Amino acid sequence: MLKRVLIANRGEIALRVRRACREAGIETVSVYSQADAEALHVQLATRSVCIGPAKAADSYLNPQALLSAALATGCDGLHPGYGFLSENPEFADACAENGITFIGPSGDAIRKAGSKSAARDLMRAAGVPVTPGSDGPVSSVEDALAVAETVGYPVLLKASAGGGGRGIRRCDSAKDLPDAYAAAKAEANACFGNDEMYLEKLVLEPRHIEFQILADRQGHVIHLGDRDCSIQRRNQKLIEEAPARCLTPELREEMGRAAVKAAQAVRYEGAGTVEFLLDSDGQHFYFMEMNTRIQVEHGITEMITGVDLVRQQLRIASGLPLDLTQEDVTLTGHAIECRINAEDPTANFRPCPGKVEFLHFPGGPGVRVDSALYNGCTLSPYYDSLAAKVMVHAPTRLEAIRRMRRCLEEFTLEGFPTNAELSYELLFHPTFVRGGCTTAFLDRSLPELLEFSRRVDDHKG
Amino acid sequence: MLKRVLIANRGEIALRVRRACREAGIETVSVYSQADAEALHVQLATRSVCIGPAKAADSYLNPQALLSAALATGCDGLHPGYGFLSENPEFADACAENGITFIGPSGDAIRKAGSKSAARDLMRAAGVPVTPGSDGPVSSVEDALAVAETVGYPVLLKASAGGGGRGIRRCDSAKDLPDAYAAAKAEANACFGNDEMYLEKLVLEPRHIEFQILADRQGHVIHLGDRDCSIQRRNQKLIEEAPARCLTPELREEMGRAAVKAAQAVRYEGAGTVEFLLDSDGQHFYFMEMNTRIQVEHGITEMITGVDLVRQQLRIASGLPLDLTQEDVTLTGHAIECRINAEDPTANFRPCPGKVEFLHFPGGPGVRVDSALYNGCTLSPYYDSLAAKVMVHAPTRLEAIRRMRRCLEEFTLEGFPTNAELSYELLFHPTFVRGGCTTAFLDRSLPELLEFSRRVDDHKG
Repeated sequence: MLKRVLIANRGEIALRVRRACREAGIETVSVYSQADAEALHVQLATRSVCIGPAKAADSYLNPQALLSAALATGCDGLHPGYGFLSENPEFADACAENGITFIGPSGDAIRKAGSKSAARDLMRAAGVPVTPGSDGPVSSVEDALAVAETVGYPVLLKASAGGGGRGIRRCDSAKDLPDAYAAAKAEANACFGNDEMYLEKLVLEPRHIEFQILADRQGHVIHLGDRDCSIQRRNQKLIEEAPARCLTPELREEMGRAAVKAAQAVRYEGAGTVEFLLDSDGQHFYFMEMNTRIQVEHGITEMITGVDLVRQQLRIASGLPLDLTQEDVTLTGHAIECRINAEDPTANFRPCPGKVEFLHFPGGPGVRVDSALYNGCTLSPYYDSLAAKVMVHAPTRLEAIRRMRRCLEEFTLEGFPTNAELSYELLFHPTFVRGGCTTAFLDRSLPELLEFSRRVDDHKG
Repeated sequence: MLKRVLIANRGEIALRVRRACREAGIETVSVYSQADAEALHVQLATRSVCIGPAKAADSYLNPQALLSAALATGCDGLHPGYGFLSENPEFADACAENGITFIGPSGDAIRKAGSKSAARDLMRAAGVPVTPGSDGPVSSVEDALAVAETVGYPVLLKASAGGGGRGIRRCDSAKDLPDAYAAAKAEANACFGNDEMYLEKLVLEPRHIEFQILADRQGHVIHLGDRDCSIQRRNQKLIEEAPARCLTPELREEMGRAAVKAAQAVRYEGAGTVEFLLDSDGQHFYFMEMNTRIQVEHGITEMITGVDLVRQQLRIASGLPLDLTQEDVTLTGHAIECRINAEDPTANFRPCPGKVEFLHFPGGPGVRVDSALYNGCTLSPYYDSLAAKVMVHAPTRLEAIRRMRRCLEEFTLEGFPTNAELSYELLFHPTFVRGGCTTAFLDRSLPELLEFSRRVDDHKG
């Protein structure tokens, strides 16, 4: 096994990694920015290194500072957590060049999975369903019109070199297409110096279903079931569930197989997530993207499988083969996570970091709270606004929902606004309770939910 | 199901019951003494009733006050928790007479299980092993000598009407017996007005193994596996594990069947625990006693079985049949509980209640902390000194031990001394690690453990 791991992150994921290392008998070194000197991940560390000023670019996003810290403290491994440099292929390469095991896939695998259009081609070649669309680029408006006619409207025109939402246009009918084509092409040329376009069908009211993957260096790849992360606001997940209620066992098996193929297509190593869009018909699914790191919501998969995913990351990075096969993986019960963020839902979700005046987390059976907060600490304005991940596990989905309701009743965080009350209201929404939420649900239902949460709470028994 | 339950207790078990009720859609009414007005179980309650002054005899042990509170608030059920009136048969009867469902067995079952000598006879008749000894009372010294010769020394002479450790003498050889017989008889006569004596073999270096029972009103009885509670100081459990490491699958099955028989012998209803002594040979076991309530350490059984025991209590009390059979019960992984008490191990475990200046509980996968403390609260000197139950669950015993170590490293409670550091040291003791602790272990090893914990801690990585 690895001997000493630099935890190149902060917040709850830094604690999570430390816990797994401690339980595996691996020493750890924590890093912190000047703003994080009092942070819990530093307070619990036996050894820690300051890596720079508060601004992430100068500390947690500074590859040189992290590598220097790892080398100076004799680390043989580095865990990137999520966010920051966790999906940066150059950083993964730099670790390897310095003899430090990057706990994640190779830089090459990160590159392959990271490029949206390249990943689409790779996946199609590997037999993983992608959204219907052009086979490679479209050569003209006429070509685009013909493809759109075949796959059906609405469609998206996308720049092959695209990213960040630039060079994309939605077309709802053939008459929109010529103008959209010209506009997208011009934008792509301006943004990327490359006006090559491709076309794909727009999936309306999809669900976001993702599969947890584990792959070792010996070439074994398994999946650990699925999560439904459809409850999102502007692509930010708010509530996640495992397993997804909308999958039949057959579809779960089929999607799981596709997820394994996707991981194999990029020669994946470690823990990763394959994200799919599930069509509103509940039958067709399409590869969306692959996240080459541990996910925020990994805990609910741990709850339903009993597998410690960070521990598995450490084992795989140490060169050990997977100690379980696909047949060993069974999904037991139902788990839900609510992300509690320091933000004000009534003020357009403005982040509201601040001092924690009072903090009390729920307990009891089937409850897990991962958080780097403590009484009296300050949630830093420099980093993301995640305050706590409240997770529950119960035999059935309804019992899990009821357990989460009582957890949010017990959850107390004073000092700044959070989305906890909004999440609590959501747990009573009929569409959520019957499992009918698509990715469009939250944005559409926000006014109603916020109105509801302003009323005197009459749910509590 | 029951509609509204009076929670006739305080502290963490009051929270535990509230949680189960809330998740089952049952309303609750909390009670509190004047000393507990600020307690967490009151702060979380939507409805609560003050039942008297701080002294338990005037509040939590006052049947009239509890019954009045239940009747005044329209409760149809009452949960007694553990301790206080939970094993008081008259109180169980009084609830029934007032039309309130006592969430526990009948007064009659409590009486049968509660009388030590009567329970011994009942169990023997039912075919449950009891310690070898006299068949009923001994009639003379000669009779006692003859029985002792048969079962082998050391033996215990015990008053049939005994209790509280009075009227008991240990004899290590035949020459001690006549004097011991006379002395015990005289003490029994003085204490109980009844000098009838019986004799049983003293089990040396036993393990304390107990089985969790569930019994419904339809006559179904199942067990949910075992717990090893051998780590005790003066009969106070400190660390519990589930399942017991020392049982073979065959012995577990045999003891489980005996536990079910024991429950059937007293026509048990609800959740209960059958305690056995396991001989140092690891093969012979003897009925010790039956606890007719939910146990402090029930959580580790919940972790390895996935069964919510308090929820089952509510179901059974509502008249519902068990929703699982013996075959449905599987024990997964290993769980450990450390009881953190407000006490000073270096001052003969003097209770040290006080104000909680700072509190932080561990989190992460497989961790559960049940506690009624919060930052800034005061642990009352009027009641027991339990501060928190830290529980972990992991695939193997060694992983559970490692997980508990890191939990106790994260556990922070400032304001008064606790036994947390002692428990932490214990988790490294070779006898504990190899699973070799008997009930004699802790008292014998205390000097060594306390010496160790005064050294600079060199375990932490």
